[in-house]
Amino acid sequence: MCAEANNEVLRQLSERKSVRVFTDDPVTAAEREAILQAAFMAPTAGNQQLYTILDITDPGLRAQLAELCDHQPMIAAAPLCLVFLADCRRWLDAYRMAGCTPRTPGAGDLLLAAADACIAAQNSVTAAQSLGIGSCYIGDILENAEAVQAALHLPAYVVPAAMVIFGRPTAQQERRQKPARFPEQAIVFENTYPEADPDRLRAGFAARAEANGNTADLDESLRAFCARKYESDFSREMTRSAEVYLRDFQKR
Amino acid sequence: MCAEANNEVLRQLSERKSVRVFTDDPVTAAEREAILQAAFMAPTAGNQQLYTILDITDPGLRAQLAELCDHQPMIAAAPLCLVFLADCRRWLDAYRMAGCTPRTPGAGDLLLAAADACIAAQNSVTAAQSLGIGSCYIGDILENAEAVQAALHLPAYVVPAAMVIFGRPTAQQERRQKPARFPEQAIVFENTYPEADPDRLRAGFAARAEANGNTADLDESLRAFCARKYESDFSREMTRSAEVYLRDFQKR
Repeated sequence: MCAEANNEVLRQLSERKSVRVFTDDPVTAAEREAILQAAFMAPTAGNQQLYTILDITDPGLRAQLAELCDHQPMIAAAPLCLVFLADCRRWLDAYRMAGCTPRTPGAGDLLLAAADACIAAQNSVTAAQSLGIGSCYIGDILENAEAVQAALHLPAYVVPAAMVIFGRPTAQQERRQKPARFPEQAIVFENTYPEADPDRLRAGFAARAEANGNTADLDESLRAFCARKYESDFSREMTRSAEVYLRDFQKR
Repeated sequence: MCAEANNEVLRQLSERKSVRVFTDDPVTAAEREAILQAAFMAPTAGNQQLYTILDITDPGLRAQLAELCDHQPMIAAAPLCLVFLADCRRWLDAYRMAGCTPRTPGAGDLLLAAADACIAAQNSVTAAQSLGIGSCYIGDILENAEAVQAALHLPAYVVPAAMVIFGRPTAQQERRQKPARFPEQAIVFENTYPEADPDRLRAGFAARAEANGNTADLDESLRAFCARKYESDFSREMTRSAEVYLRDFQKR
């Protein structure tokens, strides 16, 4: 028995794939509004909405972000570009407004706000999909902290958690196959994190490669991916930037 | 013109509210599978699925987590309880398996993996909703790092990003009103983070309180919320725990 039968929501969650090339069709004001409303209606810790959303409309700023986020021109070209900021500032300012002298936000506050921001972002992605609008997360918004802070006028305690670009998929993007995931046994475990097991690890990666039609040697592919992604300049830069953002949260 | 008309996905995203009391009806195996599949199909950085999901089935472990997560018995009582772990370990182990000597994960890797985990978690919440299954995020999974690490057997570079409990809402929970959010003008800004503006800040909080039928003095409410939530023991504990989790990511 498959729970997906006749369930439009499950079907759309399953079919949704990242879209990186968009048609020239705009995202209309009504569509943008539905995308934002879905974000607002997402679960949020204590109904606090620990995020701020920046709608990046200025072409110059878009071009700058396209450069800062690993040189991806699609960021400038997308019909809609939203930055979801983990915002530990709004409530802090409100507490001060009310006469409190609150503690400065810590790393736990940042992680909670970043979760809030990502949960809201994913609702906006799901909403867009239901309107025929594709989307792509840009993880690289976490890079180049100082330049991004300056470009977006970010004060202390406000950190980019996610950037999402939106637009209608080109025919080529519609045809593109969604990449296969790991088998469930590689991702889901009962009760506790499993002991390290080289055979299980290899089986999971091998099954994922096979499902994606990747017939290259697994170890060679992993070494290439490690060099291209994990050991890349942008990956190291992401951690340097995260340290910059964390600094304010780790002051005592 | 409202984009929501006739759009089942938007309707469900809008209606979804947290459910904290569940009927005795189980989440069936097919439903659990649909919830997990929706998580897997969520967007994920570089198709890496930087998360592991623990399905907490052991009653003793559930009771322990209920205590560790701010003493909330509903965690023990829920038909399904999933912990979404930001996992910077799986790929690291695979790189080592393939003969690489990769750098140790940094704070940027953690933030990226936590985003992946929360995005997957939100898809599972949306999938559950489509099956008539309610859910509630438990942010408190970020507390008591050492005890949670021991209980879930978490190795270094694996950090709880979200916990979600699932089950069918009781009639009382069905009737409960979803709390109103901030007005859009308090959350969404064009291009840059706005200058501090006490009037705008107050207007946003006042509109939110009014929409929730809260007629108490705003400053008094904020001071009470600050004391009860932000300055609470569990909130400080969350930041202490986050620092414990971050430690491994900040070694050089």
